[in-house]
Amino acid sequence: MGAFGWIDEQAEVRRRAGLVRVLRPRPADSPLLDLASNDYLGLARHPEVTEGAARAARTWGGGSTGSRLVTGTTELHGELERELADFCGVEAALVFSSGYAANLAAVTALAPHGSLIVSDAGNHASLIDGCRLARGTTQVVAHAEPDAVRKALGTHDGPAVAVSDAVFSVDGDAAPLAELAAVCREYGAGLVVDDAHGLGVLGDGGRGTPYAAGLAGADDVVVTATLSKSLGSQGGAVLGSARVIGHLVNAARTFIFDTGLAPAAAGAALSALRLLRRQPERAARARAVAGELYDRLTAAGLTAVRPDAAVVSVRAPSPEGAVRWAAECRAAGVAVGCFRPPSVPDGISRLRLTARADLSGEQLERAVRVIGETRP
Amino acid sequence: MGAFGWIDEQAEVRRRAGLVRVLRPRPADSPLLDLASNDYLGLARHPEVTEGAARAARTWGGGSTGSRLVTGTTELHGELERELADFCGVEAALVFSSGYAANLAAVTALAPHGSLIVSDAGNHASLIDGCRLARGTTQVVAHAEPDAVRKALGTHDGPAVAVSDAVFSVDGDAAPLAELAAVCREYGAGLVVDDAHGLGVLGDGGRGTPYAAGLAGADDVVVTATLSKSLGSQGGAVLGSARVIGHLVNAARTFIFDTGLAPAAAGAALSALRLLRRQPERAARARAVAGELYDRLTAAGLTAVRPDAAVVSVRAPSPEGAVRWAAECRAAGVAVGCFRPPSVPDGISRLRLTARADLSGEQLERAVRVIGETRP
Repeated sequence: MGAFGWIDEQAEVRRRAGLVRVLRPRPADSPLLDLASNDYLGLARHPEVTEGAARAARTWGGGSTGSRLVTGTTELHGELERELADFCGVEAALVFSSGYAANLAAVTALAPHGSLIVSDAGNHASLIDGCRLARGTTQVVAHAEPDAVRKALGTHDGPAVAVSDAVFSVDGDAAPLAELAAVCREYGAGLVVDDAHGLGVLGDGGRGTPYAAGLAGADDVVVTATLSKSLGSQGGAVLGSARVIGHLVNAARTFIFDTGLAPAAAGAALSALRLLRRQPERAARARAVAGELYDRLTAAGLTAVRPDAAVVSVRAPSPEGAVRWAAECRAAGVAVGCFRPPSVPDGISRLRLTARADLSGEQLERAVRVIGETRP
Repeated sequence: MGAFGWIDEQAEVRRRAGLVRVLRPRPADSPLLDLASNDYLGLARHPEVTEGAARAARTWGGGSTGSRLVTGTTELHGELERELADFCGVEAALVFSSGYAANLAAVTALAPHGSLIVSDAGNHASLIDGCRLARGTTQVVAHAEPDAVRKALGTHDGPAVAVSDAVFSVDGDAAPLAELAAVCREYGAGLVVDDAHGLGVLGDGGRGTPYAAGLAGADDVVVTATLSKSLGSQGGAVLGSARVIGHLVNAARTFIFDTGLAPAAAGAALSALRLLRRQPERAARARAVAGELYDRLTAAGLTAVRPDAAVVSVRAPSPEGAVRWAAECRAAGVAVGCFRPPSVPDGISRLRLTARADLSGEQLERAVRVIGETRP
């Protein structure tokens, strides 16, 4: 057996259930129609963005060479942070090597020993891991229910934060942010919002879900975001007051003990952000494409969740059915996401489709036809 | 006060102690002599490496666009993983967006419920966070003491892993890997080794600390590494048997729920790796420079730890003394790292110097003169 023999038993269970995950390396010129990536604005391959990456690598190097606190902060990082903060209407921003790291940082640094974390049951794995790592105590509450948050906060004395995705990754539904913020204020609690799927898509010109909810710049709201979805790059960010950002610099382990974001990633994100400011209509277009995708899917008799942003979730009958459905879509030339247990909090299997600002009507029609024809 | 008013009290304590951390953005053409970065082989700014990043961004995009399991795996990722595995003498490799994420993945996925994790007291923050997140129970043991690991393993029935840095980040000392592996085998336990500071520096041509210890390819040893130090890029990797890597693809949350490593980072790391294969003498040169740095520092009357790799640690009298010392070195044109509480496990403050393969004798002389003249 050896030290890791126990792995084989788990692998066998997965094999029998038809739920083995495999990596499928894609070529640079994939012929698949992409409805699976999180490249909501179609910027990952945009020449301005890839040139931004290339230029930054040439100017600053292949890596940042150290922790942001030692040698890993360049003027490029500072520029990106200032422009990101300005765009989202907040005082300050701090970029991380990934959105996962940003979420671990925000939750752990803002939930000290003795504090309460109220966490939505549908939150992303990185927020959940943040709760697990934090010194505070976590209470998980029903999905998207401000009253459940109120009830939890009412039981606690001392610092508290509510933590929620702004747009939930799996079903694409938006959190009731304005209500959540009001409840938090009632109890003097902070609100930590992960806007990974809202930045670039929701709010005026893509300024994000908290901006759309009138919460931009509020000093009791902290926003986390990613550079790897609408901004077509890699990395994460925390956006908030100078007080909170200064605290993270001093206290967040995934900031202090991680190598800084690579210059190429900072450069790509900065180029994408500037492009979005020049072309704010990309955000509205991503939303419109999602709406059209939903309309066509439901017209074809499929059960989907009305999208609040650019993610469209379609129900599948079973985990195996979802896996097979996604495989058949792929065989027919359409890449779709497949979310199923154990990686969905509610145990429901679905195809996860993503709208992109650059999808054409013809592409949408083809995608919906393939998804309809291959349904289990 | 507001929701985050408690932050101000902590900030005030730091201010009074002179321990506030601030970000110092560096320009692209910093005049400072760098003895602070982890760019051990001097490859971060090498034109082959930066061109590797630029080319990858142009070919594959600014970001990988999704989880490695959805759209985030490209043929470039596969190529990097194969060449990295081959170089280190292991069956398979898996790259992550950061070394932090790789460590969280390895420790959590290899320490299931009911298992024991035996963790060295000097381990890096990312391994510690991995232990905290894992479902297994952690026992912290004395630094670099195989007997302590033996004792801990002897008390446990069921799956177990020992977890250790290969080269410790703070003092630059190497773990007794061969002894640790022997102890683990005695008890049927696995060994997880973080070779962040060994890859590219130790072992034949920089193949790493486990390779040097004769452990490459052992199926009960799992190695984690980073692409952001010797390889001049960003990202992390786990190296091990196909069994372990397949398990991580299916079970590691920081793999499944994170956006894949950006193409530019994969491209830079791959170019650096190929360069190192062509110029294996870079590894020996980094070690020789570290030895020379140590000799000169101790000849100047400073207390340093004899380096096992490329990190040279110099004792400082106090946290404030260390902070002031590093600031004076910087003012005199030499960038050095400053490690002090709360970010050192043993509470000891030191200057942390790093050797680079491309440092000249003249530069070393100047660095040691400045460090000596500014000593508290």
